[in-house]
Amino acid sequence: MKALEEKILTEGRVLPGNILLVDAFLNQQVDIDLMKQMAEEWHSYFGERPITKILTLEASGIALAALVAERFGVPLLFAKKYESHNITGERHQSIVHSYTKQKTYKIAVSKRLLTSEDHVLIIDDFLANGCALQALVDLVTHAGAMLEGIGIAIEKTFQPGGQNLRERGYEIYALAQIKAFDEETNDVVFEPEPIISIFSPERHKDQHG
Amino acid sequence: MKALEEKILTEGRVLPGNILLVDAFLNQQVDIDLMKQMAEEWHSYFGERPITKILTLEASGIALAALVAERFGVPLLFAKKYESHNITGERHQSIVHSYTKQKTYKIAVSKRLLTSEDHVLIIDDFLANGCALQALVDLVTHAGAMLEGIGIAIEKTFQPGGQNLRERGYEIYALAQIKAFDEETNDVVFEPEPIISIFSPERHKDQHG
Repeated sequence: MKALEEKILTEGRVLPGNILLVDAFLNQQVDIDLMKQMAEEWHSYFGERPITKILTLEASGIALAALVAERFGVPLLFAKKYESHNITGERHQSIVHSYTKQKTYKIAVSKRLLTSEDHVLIIDDFLANGCALQALVDLVTHAGAMLEGIGIAIEKTFQPGGQNLRERGYEIYALAQIKAFDEETNDVVFEPEPIISIFSPERHKDQHG
Repeated sequence: MKALEEKILTEGRVLPGNILLVDAFLNQQVDIDLMKQMAEEWHSYFGERPITKILTLEASGIALAALVAERFGVPLLFAKKYESHNITGERHQSIVHSYTKQKTYKIAVSKRLLTSEDHVLIIDDFLANGCALQALVDLVTHAGAMLEGIGIAIEKTFQPGGQNLRERGYEIYALAQIKAFDEETNDVVFEPEPIISIFSPERHKDQHG
């Protein structure tokens, strides 16, 4: 998506450790107009599907997902992060290992709020190693809900998360796909053509595990 | 605000420890239509002021604040929480003690993103002891920005945060003010008349400390 790519080129900063800093418009300060254009783009792509809920993970995906939920006219649901390891019967839960923070945490949503009646569009800001996204998919699967698709703002295609998830058949529409970047020159190279599915688009229910 | 009070009465649950569970519409699942009505209400009240940024604290205030930012046509900015105690010159920082979680953490925003040019409306979901809100006010003050007002979704007026902050002269417009609740009967009692300012409305700059 051109508007997002241009914003990354003009306001993004490449930091050591393969980090792209987008705090000026995406994950600390949020450019609402840009988020609305992104929501519109996902609505063009996924809008025909019977989506009942937008699911994201706290915290940085929430603003974006709220505007997507507004565009689709459905509630937003965000999974919470927990450091504790107590198990409760009231939540769908999964585990994420963060490579950036070098720690493992649990994510969860209330079973009351995500059920087998739901048709879910997952929205998140970044896809790199895919651990957080896989954990969100796990929550949908545990709930017996239908995963209708996945929208990602920025995917680093040089990291394995997107490919791994696409190989499992998930349909991921990322609005900016970064093929490479250079922390010396601050250059960002985007994929010339969007990668969406590796197989033909399919929707998944109870396929996990 | 009637719509929010009714939602609290129909979908909120009172839990032991003075906790009001509003995860069905505010801080896990988010009712976007209700958030838009709330944004409209704050816009009616604060809309004449020269607001340049909406400021909130991750994570549960973000969805609400994003819809407020949309209504005001300005960017959203959210402060991040840190457990580490490293000081950096690049951020405005403050400290919060959470009574609910019995721990102390740091909150911060980038100095690039909050400056003395800004006119800020703070939005948050809850006000009880006021520690998180005071820390957000601190960030505005440290930046030398103008605090134009504070919008809170749900205030527990039987806890001291709102009164303490109003006594310091801050103008807080809370859309539902809970005077008391009863965890045995699940009864919620609202303030009969809104409490906004204790003194006449004033705006504050560099008043902190």
